[in-house]
Amino acid sequence: MIKKIPSNVIPRLSLYYRAILEARKDFLSSEEISKITYFSASQIRKDLAYFGQFGIPSRGYDTKKLKKVIERILGLDRKWEVVLVGVGNLGSALLSYKGFSQQGFYIRYAFDKDKRKIGKRVGSVLVRDIDELEKVLKKKKVSLAILAVPKEKVQSIVDRLVNCGIKAILNFAPIRPYVPKGVIILNIDLSIELERLAYFLKRSLR
Amino acid sequence: MIKKIPSNVIPRLSLYYRAILEARKDFLSSEEISKITYFSASQIRKDLAYFGQFGIPSRGYDTKKLKKVIERILGLDRKWEVVLVGVGNLGSALLSYKGFSQQGFYIRYAFDKDKRKIGKRVGSVLVRDIDELEKVLKKKKVSLAILAVPKEKVQSIVDRLVNCGIKAILNFAPIRPYVPKGVIILNIDLSIELERLAYFLKRSLR
Repeated sequence: MIKKIPSNVIPRLSLYYRAILEARKDFLSSEEISKITYFSASQIRKDLAYFGQFGIPSRGYDTKKLKKVIERILGLDRKWEVVLVGVGNLGSALLSYKGFSQQGFYIRYAFDKDKRKIGKRVGSVLVRDIDELEKVLKKKKVSLAILAVPKEKVQSIVDRLVNCGIKAILNFAPIRPYVPKGVIILNIDLSIELERLAYFLKRSLR
Repeated sequence: MIKKIPSNVIPRLSLYYRAILEARKDFLSSEEISKITYFSASQIRKDLAYFGQFGIPSRGYDTKKLKKVIERILGLDRKWEVVLVGVGNLGSALLSYKGFSQQGFYIRYAFDKDKRKIGKRVGSVLVRDIDELEKVLKKKKVSLAILAVPKEKVQSIVDRLVNCGIKAILNFAPIRPYVPKGVIILNIDLSIELERLAYFLKRSLR
């Protein structure tokens, strides 16, 4: 039985999953996972307790079972088609980011408004005219979108994506657009991460 | 008096700060901040309570005072020089990311090992030979580094940066390198964000 998992456990699950893949062992103790991930062994035991009992005393967790459960929870047991809007520097970086396809995420469609980019391929993905967004997406079953467009464009693109049936959006612009109920948005602001870092640094320099 | 602030409050502080800048008003209620940031008004009041009393009943928070306090806490009242290692797609995107300098972070030095990039400028920043990392950094007062290099290179670059006196690192490769005590590292794995999104999406589709 899987209990309801608090949302802050999810990013750690991804890291436990990577630890299992890296270690390539049949059994892993919480201490061994701790050495790879740097989370405390007690934190790991607490998180994994949400999925019931895979730990065998003195041997550790059955990595095969644990891997399957995490894959199911994170949706890694299926492939996700992803649409990217905005093929600037960041968009291009995301298109060639290998980590995505390793986890079952495939950017299949890319859109931009720049005529010099339209019709070209970045990696294996064709860059299409943003004017064709509705035409292309309404025929396909895509539910995830990544947004790498300038701040001023975000809300209008979000509205159009939602209108095309997109249910989940990862936004890289430093703005939090409105989405209707039933649509999930995660806003990633890279300068916030630098601010967190500077804050910790400031404290440690005191 | 400022109490010790839990680390998960920090990213929200950055967003409150942006809300203040956007709203351009002398006073803002928690409900108004909530409308801009989508955090609940009670969450906002709880977070801001760490900094003592800026709220005036029926008027809200004094934005001028609040702005100053957040700037001090986040270290935005000073400029931070930043070194970037790795000028691929992602590194180039980070070099032209305007959000950083708006918050007082200036990428002043960029390093790569690709001879075709060395000596060129991306934005206003000169790309230098990674072999000169120690020579350049040991003369400068830089304490923040951003890493956008392939996974296999991360640990060796981290070791070299630490050796140069770097105290805080933002790492974009999907690996968690070891850092000695006293050095802070934040690991950003973009596929983890997509996994979180897929997880929420999977749950909402049930």
